[in-house]
Amino acid sequence: MNNTKKLDILENPYNEKLVPLGEIESRITRLRRHMEEQGLEALLILHRPDYFYFSGTSQNSILFIAADNDPILFVKRDLDRARRESPLPVVHPFRTFSDLVGPIRDYHGNLPSLIGTELDILPAALYLRLRETFGKPEFQNASPVIMNCRMKKSPFEIEQIRKAAGIGNELFEAGRNHLKPGVSEIEFAALLENEAKKRGHEGLIRMRGLNIEGYAWQVLSGPSGSLLSEADTPAGGQGLSPAFPMGPGHRKIQPNEPVFVDFPICYNGYLADQARMYCIGDMPEKFVKAYQFCRDIQDGLLERIRPGIQCADLFSLTIDMADAAGYKDQFLGPKGKKSKFIGHGLGLEANESPAIAFGQKQQLEEHMVLAIEPKIVFENEGMAGIENIFLVTGDGCERLSDLSEDIICV
Amino acid sequence: MNNTKKLDILENPYNEKLVPLGEIESRITRLRRHMEEQGLEALLILHRPDYFYFSGTSQNSILFIAADNDPILFVKRDLDRARRESPLPVVHPFRTFSDLVGPIRDYHGNLPSLIGTELDILPAALYLRLRETFGKPEFQNASPVIMNCRMKKSPFEIEQIRKAAGIGNELFEAGRNHLKPGVSEIEFAALLENEAKKRGHEGLIRMRGLNIEGYAWQVLSGPSGSLLSEADTPAGGQGLSPAFPMGPGHRKIQPNEPVFVDFPICYNGYLADQARMYCIGDMPEKFVKAYQFCRDIQDGLLERIRPGIQCADLFSLTIDMADAAGYKDQFLGPKGKKSKFIGHGLGLEANESPAIAFGQKQQLEEHMVLAIEPKIVFENEGMAGIENIFLVTGDGCERLSDLSEDIICV
Repeated sequence: MNNTKKLDILENPYNEKLVPLGEIESRITRLRRHMEEQGLEALLILHRPDYFYFSGTSQNSILFIAADNDPILFVKRDLDRARRESPLPVVHPFRTFSDLVGPIRDYHGNLPSLIGTELDILPAALYLRLRETFGKPEFQNASPVIMNCRMKKSPFEIEQIRKAAGIGNELFEAGRNHLKPGVSEIEFAALLENEAKKRGHEGLIRMRGLNIEGYAWQVLSGPSGSLLSEADTPAGGQGLSPAFPMGPGHRKIQPNEPVFVDFPICYNGYLADQARMYCIGDMPEKFVKAYQFCRDIQDGLLERIRPGIQCADLFSLTIDMADAAGYKDQFLGPKGKKSKFIGHGLGLEANESPAIAFGQKQQLEEHMVLAIEPKIVFENEGMAGIENIFLVTGDGCERLSDLSEDIICV
Repeated sequence: MNNTKKLDILENPYNEKLVPLGEIESRITRLRRHMEEQGLEALLILHRPDYFYFSGTSQNSILFIAADNDPILFVKRDLDRARRESPLPVVHPFRTFSDLVGPIRDYHGNLPSLIGTELDILPAALYLRLRETFGKPEFQNASPVIMNCRMKKSPFEIEQIRKAAGIGNELFEAGRNHLKPGVSEIEFAALLENEAKKRGHEGLIRMRGLNIEGYAWQVLSGPSGSLLSEADTPAGGQGLSPAFPMGPGHRKIQPNEPVFVDFPICYNGYLADQARMYCIGDMPEKFVKAYQFCRDIQDGLLERIRPGIQCADLFSLTIDMADAAGYKDQFLGPKGKKSKFIGHGLGLEANESPAIAFGQKQQLEEHMVLAIEPKIVFENEGMAGIENIFLVTGDGCERLSDLSEDIICV
């Protein structure tokens, strides 16, 4: 009995989560349009979220896509499972890069002269080995092409993101039962993690780039919220050790202080990124007002979000609003250390395009999904913030979850 | 008030976890010896676990180390925290690669002609930009040099690993309270995760390499244990979706079947990797025997582990033992899909050198820490396995935790 059949003997082989053929076909069609614009004859895709997007499998694989023939899915492990998960018809086993050359040449008559690959992800040693193995072709960075494609979400993808957000909604509600005086940030975070996984959260938060580590369980209480970290966000936190100097720490949560919880959820590979404020008792008026202002910033953006508007303009709008409201020195972090983004795309990774950030000329397009996350930081005291996810529609935007925006007081 | 002072206003700024100066100095001294052997004038270290090892900070940084002068720690964010965490005296802020060139040139009179960096990790785009920015120097892969250094653990490091293992010991015991008929693999995994974080587990399992994702919470019940996955391990599991086709799934755990739990713990950045068998009721005799055989394999290895023995010889020994015991077709996975390793180094990452694997000529040395993990897989039925961590001593080895090896029956 092969491994494919073995999967079927289990009670829940997640057949309903497989990526449909039509989905894969339309993604590849769009990709080929982008490839043509960029003069790319072929792509060799090695980064897991990228080849999962175009093949439907995240087994250990490399995906070759050319303009004029079937894509070739090369699989190192596990071949049977890849065949079961991916609707692509041409699948070859491989062990090393040199196993790719023959099938590509056979399929195309010769090797393409220019191949795109993910130079922002591919380690230099593998890049050099690829060039040595393939000889003739030149390799060019194709990540912008791939990310452009992934930026606009299909109805299937939006459904997965809505499901992730739905888990998030239940999670933020369930959090009420676990927030008690004396519980530490990391303990509260762990209890949330447990509630999330129970409901289908897949645990890992994939992010793109060197040293960028994603995790859910972001809980910052009182002054922890004002500590900056290695990550480019106003909400850094103390973390647990010099090895993990970010996120929740061992600080015990006190009554009547702001507790910021940013908890991304992953469902079927897709992320929903939402944040809310909790408080044991009553949150000080200063933070209540700051939180209300974050909601105002969000609502101000929502009035402007529509296809055609530039990300940099949206970002500037928030800066102007903060200045006008007297939050110039607190908005997006303290002076001199401010973050320069107010939102980001998300999907299979938590830091996708577009960045709603300083200087970003990218225009919004229909079907983009955005996380918007205004934050106010009072030095040494703490922070307030909110995060929600939105779909850019034909003439505006739509929130992808109905989680209440009230402060969660327990 | 700067950020350094702010950290001190929190109740637990983890001062006791900071890496001592003497530790950093002796690591750099050893590194320089390796650099000299390899003819490397200088290293530019960009991968977080690597620069954390040599600097004591994992803030967003790049570390420059030359043979004959103070190392330069370049910090993007957060500078105050890096100064607090790292005992290195020379710290410069930076924003882009070009900010590195001046200080390096000033310090050394000129740029080195050969610089080592982590080509196995550094994305090709950054590598190309580094070459363009620096101009003159040639860049060479220095990861083997760095990993050689990291392979042998100091008493400080061993203490962190022991603490991680101690959390693991409590965790496996606490698991008794959560394993009940009808609980799913992922639910059990999430409950374990909660127990681990409560005790100081830091959550992320760092692993080195493209597409290698580490997570704790590996729980495989009954036939799930026989499913191979994208990862090079006999214990793959079904996973939760095509996006995460590895590890625990939604299968409900039944009485009287083997439940394999592999749960690495991270403490102060250091990992302990341990696995045990659980069972609700009684485990079938076949799996009890297979588990006992895994313990025999482990004990057979322990008699041989000492400085000077070759990893390949240890691996062969286990193959011979499995053949002799009639487990040829089950040991380390099914025929044709067997894993080719029986153990690995670990420390700040879960897949460090040495690999106790087929063909590995590396000899063991005193102060290495190894995870040994024999596994037996019965196709379509399940698996049995054990994992423990050991320190190579002057004349043998020492187990780094005292977790009972009994099957955990509930």
